[in-house]
Amino acid sequence: MPIILLTDFGNKDPYVGIIKGVISKIAPQVSVLDLTHEIEPFNIDEAAFVLYQSYSYFPKGSIFLTAVDPGVGSACRRVLVKTTNYFFIGPDNGYLSMVLTREKMEHTIHLTHKSYFLKQTSSTFHGRDIFAPVAAQLAEGIDIHEFGSELYDLDIREALIPKVKKKSIQGKILSMDRFGNAITNISREFVEKGFLKSKFFLSIKNKKIQKFSDYYSQSTSKAPFLIYGSSGFLEIAVNQGSAAKVLKLKKSDLVVLRKSGKP
Amino acid sequence: MPIILLTDFGNKDPYVGIIKGVISKIAPQVSVLDLTHEIEPFNIDEAAFVLYQSYSYFPKGSIFLTAVDPGVGSACRRVLVKTTNYFFIGPDNGYLSMVLTREKMEHTIHLTHKSYFLKQTSSTFHGRDIFAPVAAQLAEGIDIHEFGSELYDLDIREALIPKVKKKSIQGKILSMDRFGNAITNISREFVEKGFLKSKFFLSIKNKKIQKFSDYYSQSTSKAPFLIYGSSGFLEIAVNQGSAAKVLKLKKSDLVVLRKSGKP
Amino acid sequence: MPIILLTDFGNKDPYVGIIKGVISKIAPQVSVLDLTHEIEPFNIDEAAFVLYQSYSYFPKGSIFLTAVDPGVGSACRRVLVKTTNYFFIGPDNGYLSMVLTREKMEHTIHLTHKSYFLKQTSSTFHGRDIFAPVAAQLAEGIDIHEFGSELYDLDIREALIPKVKKKSIQGKILSMDRFGNAITNISREFVEKGFLKSKFFLSIKNKKIQKFSDYYSQSTSKAPFLIYGSSGFLEIAVNQGSAAKVLKLKKSDLVVLRKSGKP
Repeated sequence: MPIILLTDFGNKDPYVGIIKGVISKIAPQVSVLDLTHEIEPFNIDEAAFVLYQSYSYFPKGSIFLTAVDPGVGSACRRVLVKTTNYFFIGPDNGYLSMVLTREKMEHTIHLTHKSYFLKQTSSTFHGRDIFAPVAAQLAEGIDIHEFGSELYDLDIREALIPKVKKKSIQGKILSMDRFGNAITNISREFVEKGFLKSKFFLSIKNKKIQKFSDYYSQSTSKAPFLIYGSSGFLEIAVNQGSAAKVLKLKKSDLVVLRKSGKP
Repeated sequence: MPIILLTDFGNKDPYVGIIKGVISKIAPQVSVLDLTHEIEPFNIDEAAFVLYQSYSYFPKGSIFLTAVDPGVGSACRRVLVKTTNYFFIGPDNGYLSMVLTREKMEHTIHLTHKSYFLKQTSSTFHGRDIFAPVAAQLAEGIDIHEFGSELYDLDIREALIPKVKKKSIQGKILSMDRFGNAITNISREFVEKGFLKSKFFLSIKNKKIQKFSDYYSQSTSKAPFLIYGSSGFLEIAVNQGSAAKVLKLKKSDLVVLRKSGKP
Repeated sequence: MPIILLTDFGNKDPYVGIIKGVISKIAPQVSVLDLTHEIEPFNIDEAAFVLYQSYSYFPKGSIFLTAVDPGVGSACRRVLVKTTNYFFIGPDNGYLSMVLTREKMEHTIHLTHKSYFLKQTSSTFHGRDIFAPVAAQLAEGIDIHEFGSELYDLDIREALIPKVKKKSIQGKILSMDRFGNAITNISREFVEKGFLKSKFFLSIKNKKIQKFSDYYSQSTSKAPFLIYGSSGFLEIAVNQGSAAKVLKLKKSDLVVLRKSGKP
């Protein structure tokens, strides 16, 4: 089964390459795939969302290694989470909050058995010294319980989940893609449940967007419109342009959905 | 045979990683290589050129998956082209125009058989939902005719090919590389045929460049010079500097070659 | 054994993909890993440092292909260096200076036997035409002496090594990572030897930094501090901020270490 890497290390420094070196030393046959290394530095919310929209496309049994870790070297625990279908290795900082709304957690192992780490561990690069060797040895068949003992209080970030009020849903912008589409944390299922499929509009920064498209090139004007993105989340987009630029959006901007006709 | 990816998805978002996940689920043994994911968004000309200068270095039988697709979700057809040596999967938007000046087309299949797509296909991410599963199943040995029926009117973009006039060749800048070299669509063969190997100069934006170098570090001044790049196309370069910056060049700028002594 | 790529080609152009194509044609089973392709163009010092901090994490027998090559096409020799543990293929421009302070050189082969190159070699892209086919054939088991004859005067850059004076160590900033940490060429071993583990401070651009942290998040203020990075080199850092920006640092800036109490 492949090991999939998700980090905020960027593609400029050799850190990701070094992690692949460590893995190839222990498990030369295992394939290592990159999800992305361009998570905004220390942005756990973005990592949580990227992982959520991506993980289910990988084979069952895949091992996800996530290194987005503002607390590296501090007391933040390093954990291995086994769900029904996948393994997740990373810091205990809430990055699994969204995945665990869909995936059933079976085991959470506190990574403490140093015999599975690199011999010399630094205080600053646990991706290389702890996560990579544990992932590689897991891929080679080591039992999860070898890496440490079970724990029961994994960190979860409630703030990532949209709030349903009586006549509105309040969410936020989680991510901006390369094309300038602003992706919210409000999924299609959520909207349809909340509003019984009735019409609605979205407010952001005192602007109101009601136009809806089924695909990006359906809209022929340059006006912003709403669309369900490929992961099923509501996005704000501009055809062949950047909604982020046109509306000056940034991550964590609040959005509110309300039923049409009742502004 | 490997699957090679060419997209405008960038390396920031997880889209490319997701495509690799889909492929690894269907064809875990197949190796997936990246050509580049930094094609300028929606720039079909650039994709056509990048593919043209690259494809022949890959093993015969390689499968190229190209997702540069301004019309995603619209009526733009999704096609699989088999040439004598390679397979090309992507939108029917002309991105193969340059490759097909050298490669002999044998079959063009309109991808319509949905049983080979992901079960839930979005209108916005055909790279994941259509191209990736078709590429992976092709790599696994599925016959090309299983994916749909033959078509005979593939889109070709004539504008990518330089125009020969009586005393000049008119071309354009197709691409700017990382070093600031401006790569034209005029190949060495073209120049030598057109001008019988006689001397020539290049005009761009009212500037005239006549100096020629055999390799980048041959030029010791900071003045722009001409060079045949590693793919055999005429480039405008500056030694250890950026021709793009010095001359304020951009993609699609026109260039004209004329014989020397007759400006 | 894997082939590891280190270049200044960037991730925008298809050059790295083309190199992988050439390798996969000759050695389809060999895995190819990326160290980084975002070395600053032509910056040999940076390549030397990145390779030095990374190579030992890869399996013994790994083949490193380095293409950071201001003199491509000129008389600069192309060489294969075999050390006790690894193979290094690249230009003879000093990029191995730091690695060879730790690795024992066994053979240095001048790559001259053209039968191992691509049939048509350009003057501008030796990564594709020479280094890639040689690396792939080496991985396939060709003996190093087949590629050319031994040479004994490999280029070494003394300027990369810090200078020890009576009461100070003079070094420089070699690299800036994504987080804005400025990495010097002064390693922990060096400091401890030079100063007998006594306290010291660092001067840079008329500023004095004395505060020391064991890990990045230990510092809670926004003041710059010193830290040994994950590779054992002294870094200037700012917790969850960019030291590079705060102090306006750039590569090659000089740093001086002096014992505390004796400024």
